[in-house]
Amino acid sequence: MNRPEIILAPGPTPIPPEVFLAQGSPLVYHRGPGFGDLMRDVAGRLKVLYRTERADVLLMTSSGTGGLESAIQNLFSPGDEVFVPLAGFFADRWKRLAEAHGLVVRSIEYEWGRRIVPDEVAAALAEHPVKAVLLTQSETSTGVIQPVEELARVANEAGAMVVVDAVSSLGAVPFEFDAWGIDVAVGGSQKALSASPGIAFVAITERAWAAHETATLPRFYFDWSTYRRFAELKDPENPWTPAISVMQGLQAALELYFQDGLDAALLRHRTLSRAVKQGIEALGLDLFGEGLEDNWTVTAIRAPEGLDADTISDRIRADFGCILAPGQGPLKGTVFRIGHFGYFSELDIIRGLAALEMTLERLGYPVKRGSAVAAAEGVFQETA
Amino acid sequence: MNRPEIILAPGPTPIPPEVFLAQGSPLVYHRGPGFGDLMRDVAGRLKVLYRTERADVLLMTSSGTGGLESAIQNLFSPGDEVFVPLAGFFADRWKRLAEAHGLVVRSIEYEWGRRIVPDEVAAALAEHPVKAVLLTQSETSTGVIQPVEELARVANEAGAMVVVDAVSSLGAVPFEFDAWGIDVAVGGSQKALSASPGIAFVAITERAWAAHETATLPRFYFDWSTYRRFAELKDPENPWTPAISVMQGLQAALELYFQDGLDAALLRHRTLSRAVKQGIEALGLDLFGEGLEDNWTVTAIRAPEGLDADTISDRIRADFGCILAPGQGPLKGTVFRIGHFGYFSELDIIRGLAALEMTLERLGYPVKRGSAVAAAEGVFQETA
Repeated sequence: MNRPEIILAPGPTPIPPEVFLAQGSPLVYHRGPGFGDLMRDVAGRLKVLYRTERADVLLMTSSGTGGLESAIQNLFSPGDEVFVPLAGFFADRWKRLAEAHGLVVRSIEYEWGRRIVPDEVAAALAEHPVKAVLLTQSETSTGVIQPVEELARVANEAGAMVVVDAVSSLGAVPFEFDAWGIDVAVGGSQKALSASPGIAFVAITERAWAAHETATLPRFYFDWSTYRRFAELKDPENPWTPAISVMQGLQAALELYFQDGLDAALLRHRTLSRAVKQGIEALGLDLFGEGLEDNWTVTAIRAPEGLDADTISDRIRADFGCILAPGQGPLKGTVFRIGHFGYFSELDIIRGLAALEMTLERLGYPVKRGSAVAAAEGVFQETA
Repeated sequence: MNRPEIILAPGPTPIPPEVFLAQGSPLVYHRGPGFGDLMRDVAGRLKVLYRTERADVLLMTSSGTGGLESAIQNLFSPGDEVFVPLAGFFADRWKRLAEAHGLVVRSIEYEWGRRIVPDEVAAALAEHPVKAVLLTQSETSTGVIQPVEELARVANEAGAMVVVDAVSSLGAVPFEFDAWGIDVAVGGSQKALSASPGIAFVAITERAWAAHETATLPRFYFDWSTYRRFAELKDPENPWTPAISVMQGLQAALELYFQDGLDAALLRHRTLSRAVKQGIEALGLDLFGEGLEDNWTVTAIRAPEGLDADTISDRIRADFGCILAPGQGPLKGTVFRIGHFGYFSELDIIRGLAALEMTLERLGYPVKRGSAVAAAEGVFQETA
C-alpha cells in the first residue's frame, strides 16, 4: 500500500511530527537526572490530566492491558469478589482478566451499545457487597461512554473500591479522578494523547495502596511497590529499563495536548465527535449506541442494509488508506467504527468523511456527494 | 548536562541514526498486512540470531524482565521446583521472580564474579531433580558469561527444562538455541541489537509449549497462547497494541546487525571487549570476574585502592558525559563496569578509554596519558 495510512481508528491515533521527532531523538539514559526530569514532567502532567492531586501516577512499559492487569495483581487475592458491569468487549476483558487471576466476578449483563444503569449496579452491590467495581469508561467496542461518575458514587456508597479502565477515554472526555472518588485508573500513551503505544499509566489512591498491602496475587514486573520505590528516588526511575523513546514522545505529546489547556482539548473532542455523527447521519446511516451526545471517543455506525460492515472498512482502507475499526464480537459485520480522539483537526475528519462517501458510492450505496462533508462543515462553522 | 550522553553502559546502548529514523517514522497500523510484514521480518531475523529453526519467537511489549516473568508464568504451577545457580544480581532476579510466583527455588551460591561449575549443578540435579533450570548467560553485574552450553547439557541429562535469560547476551556472544538444547530464551531490544528498549522476545520449544499446557500460574498480558494465536494470523499481530515505534526501530537495528553477517557481529564484540580489557590493564587496574576471554558484553573493573568506584563513574559522567555502570550489590563502590555490546565502533571504545584516563588523573590516580588508548589501538591493529 503506497499511499499513507490515515488513521481514523480508536488508537493508535495520528501522531504529531513533534512526537516523532522526540521519539527519534537520542535517548536520555534511564538512570540519572535527565530521565528523572522526564519522568517527573510526564507524571506531573498526567496528574493534571487525571484531575488528581491525591493519587500517585506510575508509568509502566506495556500496552494498556498490562496496566489493567497490574491493577488486578496489586489489589486482590485469589477468591476476592469484584463486580463488572458488562456492556461490550472491553468490560468483558476486565472479567476475563479477573477470572484469569482467580477472582470471583459478579456482573449484570447489558446488551452491547447500552449504557450501564447506576441504580441497577447499586441494587446488586447492596444485595451482595464486593471488594471492588471494575469499570470501563469508554466502551470502545460500542462507542458508549459509561456513566463513571454515577457508577463510582454507588460503588463508594457500597464500600467498594472503584477501578477504571480509562485507557481510551482519558483526555478525550471529562474525567475527574479526585472529585468522582476513583481509586485506580489506567491510561495509555497511544489514545487521546497521540503518543506512540508502549506506556501505560496507573493512578493510585491511598485506599488502593492499603489494599495492595494485603493483596497476595503473585506479581513481579507490574508490582506497584517496586515502581513506587524507584519513582521516589531523588532522580525518579523505572525499576526496569523503560521504553525511553516512547516516554520522550509522550512528553512531547503532553506538551502539545496542554497547549490550549485541558478544557479546550476536551471541547475539541466534542466538536470532532459531533461533526462525525452529523456527517454520518447526513448519509442516512444509523448511529449505534446510547448516549451519543457524550460519546466523544469513537462513533459506531451501522452498515446500511445489505452491506457488510467489514466490506466498508476493507474497501476504504484499500482505496484511500483510511483505517476505520471493524465491529467486534456480536457487532462484527454489522457495525464499523470511526475513532476521533487524538491529534485530529477538522480537516482530518472532513477528508475521512469524503473517503467514506466515495467508498459507499463505490459499494453501490446511494450517496449524495459532499453531503457528509457539508454536515461536518456545519458543525465547525457553528463552533468557530 | 549539555554535552551529549556517551553510553558505555550495558544497555540501553548507543542507537544508530537509522534506528532513530525508523522509530520516528509514521507508525504502521498494528492490525493488517503492514504490521504483519514487520512482525514476520523481525521474528524471522530473531530466529537466525537465536540460531533456532525449531522454536517459535514471540514479541512482547515490555522490558526484558517482563519477558522473564512470562517464562515463569507460562511454564510453571505453584510449588514447582526450579534450580537457579546464583552468581550475581541477575541470577538472583530469577530467584526472586520464581519465588514471587510460589515456586520452590533450589540453588548453589557462588561468589559474585565466579563462573558456575556445570559438574556441581549436575550433582545437585542428580540428587534432587527439578522441573527446570533457570540460567543467566551474561551475568551483567559481574561481566561473567556463564557456560550455558555445558549447563544446558547437564540440565537436559537430568530431565530438566532449560530456561535462559539471554537479554544482555544475545547477539554479543555465541548462543545456539537448537544445538545447546535450550527450551526457552528471553532477549531484549535494547542490548546487543542497539534498538530502543520496549520489546522483549521469547523463543519457545515444543517441550516448553507442552509444559505451558499444564502450567496453572495466573497470567493474562504475558500469556503465550494468546500471543501465538495472534502471531499465527495471516497478517501476524500482537494481541495487545504493541510498541510499534520500537518494533520499527528494532527492524532497522536487525537490518544493520546482519549487514556483515552474524559471525562478523560476534567477532566485533570480541574485538571491542579485548580492546577495553587491554586498555584497562595498561592503566594498571584489575579486571574483575572469571573467564575474561569469553566476556564480550561488559567489563567489570576494580576501582584502584583508595578510590570509590562510584566516584569514578559519577566524575566521568559529569566531566565527559560518559555513562559507565556502577557496581551492584556487594560490588557497589569497589567495581565499575564498561558495556561494549551494541552499536560500537573502535573509536567509541577509544574515546571512552581516553575519558577514563583523564578522569582517573583528575581523581589523583597516576595515569600515563594515552596508555589505555595505545593498548586498545594495539588490539585493533592486530585484528585489522
